[in-house]
Amino acid sequence: MKFSPLVDELIQSLKYLPGVGPKSAQRMAFQLLERDRKAGQSLASALSSAMSDVGHCQACRTFTEETLCPICASHKRGNSEVICVVETPADVLAIEAGGHFSGRYFVLLGHLSPLDGVGPEELGLSLLEAHLASGEVSELILATNPTVEGDATAHFIADMAKGHQVSVSRIAHGVPVGGELEYVDSTTLALSFNGRLPL
Amino acid sequence: MKFSPLVDELIQSLKYLPGVGPKSAQRMAFQLLERDRKAGQSLASALSSAMSDVGHCQACRTFTEETLCPICASHKRGNSEVICVVETPADVLAIEAGGHFSGRYFVLLGHLSPLDGVGPEELGLSLLEAHLASGEVSELILATNPTVEGDATAHFIADMAKGHQVSVSRIAHGVPVGGELEYVDSTTLALSFNGRLPL
Repeated sequence: MKFSPLVDELIQSLKYLPGVGPKSAQRMAFQLLERDRKAGQSLASALSSAMSDVGHCQACRTFTEETLCPICASHKRGNSEVICVVETPADVLAIEAGGHFSGRYFVLLGHLSPLDGVGPEELGLSLLEAHLASGEVSELILATNPTVEGDATAHFIADMAKGHQVSVSRIAHGVPVGGELEYVDSTTLALSFNGRLPL
Repeated sequence: MKFSPLVDELIQSLKYLPGVGPKSAQRMAFQLLERDRKAGQSLASALSSAMSDVGHCQACRTFTEETLCPICASHKRGNSEVICVVETPADVLAIEAGGHFSGRYFVLLGHLSPLDGVGPEELGLSLLEAHLASGEVSELILATNPTVEGDATAHFIADMAKGHQVSVSRIAHGVPVGGELEYVDSTTLALSFNGRLPL
Protein backbone atom coordinates (compact mmCIF):
# COMPACT_ATOMS: atom_id res chain seq x y z
CA MET A 1 0.00 0.00 0.00
CA LYS A 2 1.18 3.47 -0.78
CA PHE A 3 0.59 6.67 1.11
CA SER A 4 -0.61 9.83 -0.53
CA PRO A 5 2.01 11.29 -2.96
CA LEU A 6 3.38 14.03 -0.66
CA VAL A 7 3.80 11.69 2.33
CA ASP A 8 5.38 9.10 0.04
CA GLU A 9 7.81 11.63 -1.39
CA LEU A 10 8.76 12.78 2.12
CA ILE A 11 9.50 9.17 3.17
CA GLN A 12 11.54 8.55 0.01
CA SER A 13 13.50 11.79 0.53
CA LEU A 14 14.29 11.02 4.17
CA LYS A 15 16.02 7.84 2.95
CA TYR A 16 18.73 10.05 1.38
CA LEU A 17 20.03 10.59 4.92
CA PRO A 18 22.84 8.19 5.83
CA GLY A 19 21.74 5.38 8.13
CA VAL A 20 18.03 5.93 7.48
CA GLY A 21 16.14 2.98 5.98
CA PRO A 22 12.47 2.63 4.95
CA LYS A 23 11.17 1.97 8.49
CA SER A 24 13.07 4.85 10.12
CA ALA A 25 12.10 7.19 7.29
CA GLN A 26 8.46 6.31 7.83
CA ARG A 27 8.75 6.87 11.58
CA MET A 28 10.47 10.23 11.05
CA ALA A 29 7.83 11.37 8.57
CA PHE A 30 4.93 10.39 10.85
CA GLN A 31 6.58 11.92 13.90
CA LEU A 32 7.06 15.26 12.13
CA LEU A 33 3.56 15.22 10.62
CA GLU A 34 1.85 14.21 13.87
CA ARG A 35 3.82 16.07 16.49
CA ASP A 36 6.00 18.79 15.19
CA ARG A 37 5.24 20.48 11.89
CA LYS A 38 7.08 23.60 12.98
CA ALA A 39 10.29 21.62 13.52
CA GLY A 40 9.76 20.05 10.10
CA GLN A 41 9.43 23.46 8.51
CA SER A 42 12.55 24.78 10.21
CA LEU A 43 14.49 21.67 9.17
CA ALA A 44 13.34 22.30 5.61
CA SER A 45 14.55 25.89 5.62
CA ALA A 46 17.85 25.03 7.38
CA LEU A 47 18.49 22.33 4.78
CA SER A 48 17.60 24.55 1.89
CA SER A 49 19.79 27.47 2.93
CA ALA A 50 22.73 25.25 3.95
CA MET A 51 22.63 23.35 0.65
CA SER A 52 22.62 26.52 -1.41
CA ASP A 53 24.84 28.85 0.65
CA VAL A 54 27.49 26.76 2.41
CA GLY A 55 30.74 26.68 0.49
CA HIS A 56 34.35 26.03 1.40
CA CYS A 57 36.83 28.14 3.37
CA GLN A 58 39.27 29.59 0.86
CA ALA A 59 42.22 28.84 3.12
CA CYS A 60 41.45 25.42 4.63
CA ARG A 61 38.53 24.05 2.59
CA THR A 62 36.26 23.26 5.55
CA PHE A 63 32.56 24.07 5.28
CA THR A 64 31.57 27.69 5.80
CA GLU A 65 29.28 30.22 4.20
CA GLU A 66 31.89 32.97 4.65
CA THR A 67 35.12 33.42 2.68
CA LEU A 68 37.14 32.14 5.64
CA CYS A 69 36.12 29.74 8.43
CA PRO A 70 36.26 31.03 12.05
CA ILE A 71 39.68 29.44 12.68
CA CYS A 72 41.31 30.76 9.49
CA ALA A 73 39.71 34.18 10.07
CA SER A 74 41.00 34.45 13.65
CA HIS A 75 44.06 36.66 13.95
CA LYS A 76 45.82 34.29 16.33
CA ARG A 77 45.31 30.98 14.54
CA GLY A 78 44.79 31.99 10.91
CA ASN A 79 48.44 33.00 10.56
CA SER A 80 49.86 30.04 12.48
CA GLU A 81 52.99 28.45 11.03
CA VAL A 82 51.69 24.97 11.83
CA ILE A 83 49.14 23.30 9.57
CA CYS A 84 47.36 20.07 10.50
CA VAL A 85 46.07 18.12 7.49
CA VAL A 86 42.85 16.13 8.11
CA GLU A 87 40.42 14.26 5.92
CA THR A 88 37.07 15.70 7.01
CA PRO A 89 35.53 18.63 8.91
CA ALA A 90 34.45 16.10 11.58
CA ASP A 91 38.17 15.41 12.21
CA VAL A 92 38.70 19.12 12.85
CA LEU A 93 35.93 18.97 15.43
CA ALA A 94 37.47 15.93 17.14
CA ILE A 95 40.88 17.63 17.40
CA GLU A 96 39.33 20.92 18.56
CA ALA A 97 37.40 19.04 21.26
CA GLY A 98 40.75 18.03 22.75
CA GLY A 99 41.99 21.60 22.71
CA HIS A 100 45.66 20.60 22.39
CA PHE A 101 46.28 22.02 18.93
CA SER A 102 46.46 25.73 18.34
CA GLY A 103 47.55 25.88 14.71
CA ARG A 104 45.38 25.98 11.63
CA TYR A 105 43.93 23.14 9.56
CA PHE A 106 43.78 21.97 6.00
CA VAL A 107 40.79 19.79 5.20
CA LEU A 108 41.22 17.39 2.26
CA LEU A 109 37.52 16.44 2.14
CA GLY A 110 38.50 12.86 1.34
CA HIS A 111 41.59 10.80 0.64
CA LEU A 112 43.44 9.75 -2.51
CA SER A 113 41.37 7.07 -4.19
CA PRO A 114 42.18 6.80 -7.91
CA LEU A 115 39.48 4.17 -8.52
CA ASP A 116 36.82 6.63 -7.34
CA GLY A 117 38.36 9.41 -9.39
CA VAL A 118 39.74 11.24 -6.35
CA GLY A 119 43.18 12.58 -7.23
CA PRO A 120 45.40 15.39 -5.88
CA GLU A 121 43.25 18.05 -7.55
CA GLU A 122 40.03 16.86 -5.85
CA LEU A 123 41.80 17.09 -2.47
CA GLY A 124 42.86 20.69 -3.14
CA LEU A 125 46.56 19.81 -2.89
CA SER A 126 47.54 22.69 -5.19
CA LEU A 127 46.06 25.06 -2.62
CA LEU A 128 48.06 23.30 0.10
CA GLU A 129 51.19 23.59 -2.03
CA ALA A 130 50.53 27.32 -2.43
CA HIS A 131 50.40 27.59 1.39
CA LEU A 132 53.76 25.75 1.60
CA ALA A 133 55.30 27.86 -1.18
CA SER A 134 54.28 31.08 0.58
CA GLY A 135 57.04 30.44 3.14
CA GLU A 136 54.66 31.11 6.02
CA VAL A 137 54.44 27.47 7.05
CA SER A 138 57.11 25.80 9.18
CA GLU A 139 55.44 22.53 10.09
CA LEU A 140 52.94 20.18 8.50
CA ILE A 141 51.24 17.59 10.73
CA LEU A 142 49.59 14.82 8.74
CA ALA A 143 46.53 13.56 10.63
CA THR A 144 44.86 11.52 7.91
CA ASN A 145 43.23 8.28 9.05
CA PRO A 146 45.45 5.22 9.64
CA THR A 147 43.93 3.37 6.69
CA VAL A 148 45.59 2.29 3.45
CA GLU A 149 44.17 5.33 1.64
CA GLY A 150 44.93 7.70 4.51
CA ASP A 151 48.53 6.47 4.68
CA ALA A 152 48.95 6.78 0.90
CA THR A 153 47.58 10.31 1.05
CA ALA A 154 49.96 11.20 3.89
CA HIS A 155 52.97 9.89 1.94
CA PHE A 156 51.89 11.75 -1.19
CA ILE A 157 51.65 15.03 0.74
CA ALA A 158 54.99 14.37 2.48
CA ASP A 159 56.62 13.89 -0.94
CA MET A 160 55.01 17.08 -2.17
CA ALA A 161 56.31 19.03 0.85
CA LYS A 162 59.92 17.93 0.30
CA GLY A 163 60.60 20.78 -2.12
CA HIS A 164 59.72 23.36 0.55
CA GLN A 165 61.43 24.28 3.82
CA VAL A 166 58.81 22.54 5.95
CA SER A 167 59.15 19.86 8.60
CA VAL A 168 56.59 17.13 8.03
CA SER A 169 55.30 14.72 10.68
CA ARG A 170 52.59 12.10 10.98
CA ILE A 171 50.48 11.73 14.14
CA ALA A 172 51.40 8.69 16.25
CA HIS A 173 49.47 5.45 15.93
CA GLY A 174 49.48 2.92 18.72
CA VAL A 175 47.60 1.55 21.69
CA PRO A 176 44.81 4.00 22.67
CA VAL A 177 44.70 5.26 26.25
CA GLY A 178 42.39 3.08 28.33
CA GLY A 179 42.73 0.24 25.80
CA GLU A 180 44.00 -3.17 26.83
CA LEU A 181 47.06 -4.57 25.07
CA GLU A 182 45.41 -7.97 24.95
CA TYR A 183 42.62 -6.75 22.68
CA VAL A 184 44.61 -4.48 20.38
CA ASP A 185 45.04 -5.74 16.80
CA SER A 186 48.51 -6.79 15.65
CA THR A 187 48.97 -3.96 13.12
CA THR A 188 48.32 -1.35 15.79
CA LEU A 189 50.71 -3.16 18.14
CA ALA A 190 53.39 -3.23 15.44
CA LEU A 191 52.89 0.52 14.88
CA SER A 192 53.14 1.18 18.61
CA PHE A 193 56.47 -0.70 18.74
CA ASN A 194 57.85 1.11 15.70
CA GLY A 195 56.79 4.45 17.14
CA ARG A 196 58.21 3.85 20.64
CA LEU A 197 59.65 6.91 22.38
CA PRO A 198 62.65 7.04 24.78
CA LEU A 199 61.59 7.51 28.42
CA MET B 1 34.30 24.51 18.66
CA LYS B 2 31.33 25.61 16.64
CA PHE B 3 30.78 25.36 12.92
CA SER B 4 29.68 28.28 10.82
CA PRO B 5 26.10 29.41 11.63
CA LEU B 6 24.34 27.74 8.68
CA VAL B 7 26.06 24.37 9.21
CA ASP B 8 25.36 24.60 12.92
CA GLU B 9 21.70 25.37 12.33
CA LEU B 10 21.44 22.41 9.96
CA ILE B 11 22.94 20.06 12.56
CA GLN B 12 20.62 21.41 15.27
CA SER B 13 17.59 21.03 13.00
CA LEU B 14 18.45 17.45 12.03
CA LYS B 15 18.25 16.58 15.73
CA TYR B 16 14.48 17.20 15.58
CA LEU B 17 14.22 13.86 13.76
CA PRO B 18 13.41 10.97 16.11
CA GLY B 19 16.40 8.78 16.91
CA VAL B 20 18.94 11.32 15.65
CA GLY B 21 21.49 12.55 18.20
CA PRO B 22 24.33 15.08 17.86
CA LYS B 23 26.78 12.64 16.22
CA SER B 24 24.31 11.29 13.67
CA ALA B 25 23.07 14.80 12.90
CA GLN B 26 26.64 15.90 12.20
CA ARG B 27 27.27 12.88 9.98
CA MET B 28 24.04 13.53 8.06
CA ALA B 29 24.85 17.20 7.56
CA PHE B 30 28.40 16.49 6.30
CA GLN B 31 27.22 13.68 4.05
CA LEU B 32 24.64 15.91 2.40
CA LEU B 33 27.04 18.87 2.11
CA GLU B 34 29.91 16.78 0.76
CA ARG B 35 28.18 14.25 -1.45
CA ASP B 36 24.66 15.07 -2.33
CA ARG B 37 23.44 18.66 -2.27
CA LYS B 38 20.73 17.85 -4.79
CA ALA B 39 19.28 15.20 -2.45
CA GLY B 40 19.44 17.73 0.38
CA GLN B 41 17.52 20.25 -1.68
CA SER B 42 14.85 17.73 -2.66
CA LEU B 43 14.52 16.63 0.97
CA ALA B 44 14.05 20.30 1.91
CA SER B 45 11.28 20.80 -0.63
CA ALA B 46 9.58 17.47 0.18
CA LEU B 47 9.60 18.41 3.88
CA SER B 48 8.34 21.88 3.25
CA SER B 49 5.42 20.86 1.03
CA ALA B 50 4.47 17.89 3.22
CA MET B 51 4.47 20.02 6.38
CA SER B 52 2.27 22.68 4.85
CA ASP B 53 -0.06 20.63 2.61
CA VAL B 54 -0.62 17.24 4.23
CA GLY B 55 -3.81 17.15 6.26
CA HIS B 56 -6.14 14.39 7.42
CA CYS B 57 -8.60 12.25 5.49
CA GLN B 58 -12.08 13.53 6.34
CA ALA B 59 -13.42 10.00 6.70
CA CYS B 60 -10.64 8.07 8.46
CA ARG B 61 -8.19 10.74 9.72
CA THR B 62 -5.05 9.23 8.14
CA PHE B 63 -2.53 11.55 6.50
CA THR B 64 -3.39 12.76 3.02
CA GLU B 65 -3.27 16.00 1.08
CA GLU B 66 -6.64 15.20 -0.56
CA THR B 67 -10.07 15.33 1.08
CA LEU B 68 -10.17 11.53 1.22
CA CYS B 69 -7.30 9.03 1.41
CA PRO B 70 -6.96 6.44 -1.40
CA ILE B 71 -8.76 3.73 0.61
CA CYS B 72 -11.70 5.92 1.65
CA ALA B 73 -11.92 7.33 -1.87
CA SER B 74 -12.04 3.89 -3.52
CA HIS B 75 -15.56 2.83 -4.48
CA LYS B 76 -15.09 -0.74 -3.23
CA ARG B 77 -13.55 -0.09 0.17
CA GLY B 78 -14.72 3.42 1.02
CA ASN B 79 -18.31 2.22 1.52
CA SER B 80 -17.41 -0.97 3.35
CA GLU B 81 -19.61 -1.89 6.33
CA VAL B 82 -16.55 -2.98 8.33
CA ILE B 83 -14.33 -0.41 10.03
CA CYS B 84 -11.00 -1.31 11.61
CA VAL B 85 -9.89 1.15 14.31
CA VAL B 86 -6.09 1.59 14.62
CA GLU B 87 -3.84 4.00 16.49
CA THR B 88 -1.51 5.23 13.74
CA PRO B 89 -1.15 5.40 9.94
CA ALA B 90 1.79 2.97 10.31
CA ASP B 91 -0.67 0.39 11.68
CA VAL B 92 -2.77 0.80 8.54
CA LEU B 93 0.35 0.04 6.52
CA ALA B 94 1.13 -3.08 8.57
CA ILE B 95 -2.41 -4.45 8.11
CA GLU B 96 -2.46 -3.57 4.40
CA ALA B 97 0.86 -5.39 3.96
CA GLY B 98 -0.91 -8.58 5.05
CA GLY B 99 -3.71 -8.00 2.57
CA HIS B 100 -6.30 -9.92 4.62
CA PHE B 101 -8.55 -6.98 5.46
CA SER B 102 -10.73 -5.41 2.81
CA GLY B 103 -12.79 -2.97 4.86
CA ARG B 104 -11.99 0.61 5.68
CA TYR B 105 -10.03 2.12 8.56
CA PHE B 106 -10.40 4.69 11.27
CA VAL B 107 -7.12 6.15 12.50
CA LEU B 108 -7.17 7.54 16.05
CA LEU B 109 -3.71 9.18 15.75
CA GLY B 110 -2.95 8.20 19.33
CA HIS B 111 -4.68 6.58 22.29
CA LEU B 112 -6.61 7.87 25.31
CA SER B 113 -4.08 9.42 27.67
CA PRO B 114 -5.74 11.93 30.03
CA LEU B 115 -2.41 12.92 31.61
CA ASP B 116 -1.12 14.07 28.21
CA GLY B 117 -4.38 15.86 27.48
CA VAL B 118 -5.50 13.29 24.91
CA GLY B 119 -9.23 12.71 25.34
CA PRO B 120 -12.02 11.41 23.07
CA GLU B 121 -12.11 14.67 21.12
CA GLU B 122 -8.39 14.52 20.22
CA LEU B 123 -8.92 10.99 18.85
CA GLY B 124 -11.80 12.15 16.65
CA LEU B 125 -14.27 9.83 18.34
CA SER B 126 -17.18 12.12 17.50
CA LEU B 127 -16.40 11.53 13.82
CA LEU B 128 -16.32 7.77 14.48
CA GLU B 129 -19.66 8.01 16.28
CA ALA B 130 -21.09 9.87 13.28
CA HIS B 131 -19.98 6.92 11.10
CA LEU B 132 -21.73 4.51 13.49
CA ALA B 133 -24.86 6.66 13.67
CA SER B 134 -25.13 6.76 9.87
CA GLY B 135 -26.28 3.12 9.95
CA GLU B 136 -23.79 2.18 7.22
CA VAL B 137 -21.48 0.30 9.58
CA SER B 138 -22.17 -3.28 10.64
CA GLU B 139 -18.91 -4.23 12.31
CA LEU B 140 -16.18 -2.44 14.25
CA ILE B 141 -12.85 -4.23 14.69
CA LEU B 142 -10.71 -2.68 17.42
CA ALA B 143 -7.02 -3.08 16.54
CA THR B 144 -5.47 -0.69 19.05
CA ASN B 145 -2.19 -1.83 20.58
CA PRO B 146 -2.30 -4.40 23.42
CA THR B 147 -1.03 -1.85 25.95
CA VAL B 148 -2.84 -0.39 28.96
CA GLU B 149 -3.73 2.74 26.99
CA GLY B 150 -4.66 0.81 23.85
CA ASP B 151 -6.93 -1.51 25.87
CA ALA B 152 -8.56 1.43 27.65
CA THR B 153 -9.17 3.12 24.31
CA ALA B 154 -10.69 -0.08 22.90
CA HIS B 155 -13.06 -0.41 25.85
CA PHE B 156 -14.05 3.24 25.61
CA ILE B 157 -14.93 2.84 21.93
CA ALA B 158 -16.77 -0.43 22.61
CA ASP B 159 -18.91 1.37 25.22
CA MET B 160 -19.56 4.18 22.77
CA ALA B 161 -20.66 1.71 20.08
CA LYS B 162 -23.23 0.01 22.36
CA GLY B 163 -25.92 2.53 21.48
CA HIS B 164 -25.68 1.65 17.78
CA GLN B 165 -26.54 -1.57 15.93
CA VAL B 166 -22.91 -2.55 15.44
CA SER B 167 -21.05 -5.71 16.37
CA VAL B 168 -17.78 -4.82 18.06
CA SER B 169 -14.74 -7.11 18.26
CA ARG B 170 -11.13 -6.85 19.40
CA ILE B 171 -8.28 -8.48 17.45
CA ALA B 172 -6.87 -11.61 19.11
CA HIS B 173 -3.78 -11.41 21.27
CA GLY B 174 -1.68 -14.49 21.90
CA VAL B 175 1.45 -16.39 20.93
CA PRO B 176 2.75 -15.03 17.60
CA VAL B 177 3.30 -17.46 14.74
CA GLY B 178 6.90 -18.70 14.75
CA GLY B 179 7.28 -17.72 18.40
CA GLU B 180 8.25 -20.29 20.99
CA LEU B 181 5.96 -20.84 23.96
CA GLU B 182 8.98 -20.98 26.25
CA TYR B 183 9.93 -17.37 25.56
CA VAL B 184 6.48 -15.76 25.50
CA ASP B 185 5.69 -13.49 28.47
CA SER B 186 3.06 -14.60 30.98
CA THR B 187 0.49 -11.91 30.11
CA THR B 188 0.51 -12.91 26.45
CA LEU B 189 0.20 -16.57 27.46
CA ALA B 190 -2.76 -15.75 29.71
CA LEU B 191 -4.41 -13.87 26.83
CA SER B 192 -3.83 -16.80 24.50
CA PHE B 193 -5.54 -19.15 26.96
CA ASN B 194 -8.48 -16.81 27.46
CA GLY B 195 -8.88 -16.38 23.73
CA ARG B 196 -8.67 -20.11 22.87
CA LEU B 197 -10.85 -21.26 19.98
CA PRO B 198 -12.60 -24.63 19.61
CA LEU B 199 -10.91 -26.95 17.08
